[in-house]
Amino acid sequence: MAGKRVKRVRAQRIAPGEAGGPGTRKTREEHLAVEEPLEMRVGGSSYAVTMRTPGDDFDLVAGFLVGDGVVRSGTDLTALRYCAGVGPDGLQTYNVVDAAVSPVALEATRHRERHVDGTSACGICGVASIDAVETTSSHDLTADDTQVSTALLAGLPEKLRAEQRDFDRTGGVHAAGLFRADGTALVVREDVGRHNAVDKVVGWSLRNGLLPLRGTVLQVSGRASFELAQKAVMAGIPVLAAVSAPSSLAVDLARRSGLTLVGFSRGDRLTVYAGEERLAP
Amino acid sequence: MAGKRVKRVRAQRIAPGEAGGPGTRKTREEHLAVEEPLEMRVGGSSYAVTMRTPGDDFDLVAGFLVGDGVVRSGTDLTALRYCAGVGPDGLQTYNVVDAAVSPVALEATRHRERHVDGTSACGICGVASIDAVETTSSHDLTADDTQVSTALLAGLPEKLRAEQRDFDRTGGVHAAGLFRADGTALVVREDVGRHNAVDKVVGWSLRNGLLPLRGTVLQVSGRASFELAQKAVMAGIPVLAAVSAPSSLAVDLARRSGLTLVGFSRGDRLTVYAGEERLAP
Repeated sequence: MAGKRVKRVRAQRIAPGEAGGPGTRKTREEHLAVEEPLEMRVGGSSYAVTMRTPGDDFDLVAGFLVGDGVVRSGTDLTALRYCAGVGPDGLQTYNVVDAAVSPVALEATRHRERHVDGTSACGICGVASIDAVETTSSHDLTADDTQVSTALLAGLPEKLRAEQRDFDRTGGVHAAGLFRADGTALVVREDVGRHNAVDKVVGWSLRNGLLPLRGTVLQVSGRASFELAQKAVMAGIPVLAAVSAPSSLAVDLARRSGLTLVGFSRGDRLTVYAGEERLAP
Repeated sequence: MAGKRVKRVRAQRIAPGEAGGPGTRKTREEHLAVEEPLEMRVGGSSYAVTMRTPGDDFDLVAGFLVGDGVVRSGTDLTALRYCAGVGPDGLQTYNVVDAAVSPVALEATRHRERHVDGTSACGICGVASIDAVETTSSHDLTADDTQVSTALLAGLPEKLRAEQRDFDRTGGVHAAGLFRADGTALVVREDVGRHNAVDKVVGWSLRNGLLPLRGTVLQVSGRASFELAQKAVMAGIPVLAAVSAPSSLAVDLARRSGLTLVGFSRGDRLTVYAGEERLAP
């Protein structure tokens, strides 16, 4: 129903010549990761816009609302539907999704809008937003005593890569995969935005009754930013592992909320920045 | 004055043992790219929040406002200053910047707020925002007949990498560099967000009286999304080159606005998706 995830275009592959020589140019079809805007509405009102790869849009919206602390369980989300949106070609765009939510969740969106749009006191988003995560998350990660073997963790990037469908063709998508502590893959999603890939994973979990995600590991293909750490905490995921570097604020948040944060996970090695007590030898 | 760009934390580097053996764990100091929120205000009102690496904050705000079509020349931006913001330790946070702008620019922010926050017609951000870029950019890229050698272009990622200060230590920052068509570097910036790195480059250029950036190449370290292509167009940059893949919407925008878009720029090869007439053999 929704749009394609990969699009083909004509492009020129160029190999410049040595020392100013002619080199080669070949025109061929290349595969691109599709990027399209998605407008998310809550109760009929515009809530947020994200640039995403089409597909699993309902999961994306559900996960986004979990990350924002608006939706806390499946009962908060009563319905998801595409709004009628028409492109210049007269066809449905599937780029607007409306979420019907519980009265409590609707109230939470009002609170968030004031928070974001108001001319708040200085430091609004720094300490303020970290505090907000810690106070609004309904899941206590410190109560999750999951143990994960370091050898298993180090192998997750390769498992994630093997499950990716669009990366080989496009080179343009990030991936997020949710695994059980024994290495079983629960769900893997790709998207031009790594935050979207995580939202799709979390939203799929919510809609399958799996929140909070105790005993799981979220493996992501890129770096670990504050935003990704926040999304993991809000979904009750105890372990976040990234192939590349974490940011300072991701480490701060992980240490304050009991999230295990792993970076530079590369097959034969990894670095743990927070919550190392969950890593079994 | 502003905060640090790199922070040190203690972390454990782990090499799991073979076949469930003990492996090794070494505790050491690791360098992290700093990520902090920046609240941007225009005329005293909250305008946007971005997670960024501190440093060159005034350039970041200036460039962000150029990308949004709010600031079109240096005369639109009359002053930039840090607001008093205090963290939990009682020290100034330097995480809030206020921009004083011309009446025309102030009016443009009001227009944008309505556009983003209103419950607009479906397809608001899809075709609507692409049209908005094309109609609001004051720079006609098709009038820029810059020629760039493909050999020079293919070498820019290495030049960019050589200018990076924080990547080797942290592995956690993207980079954007502005080069003349003869390969001279004008400015290089790093940030946890690649869109911020581009904003810092564009803002530096605005504040040095260089807009529109005719005859230049913007080289970025990651992929080329719609957002980056849009920022290039709004700054009058005729050539955008990325080390990795472009998205479908970045290619669409480049073709519609006369931007040369290069991807997979890897030393001995590159792929051109739009505006190939600017590439000299």
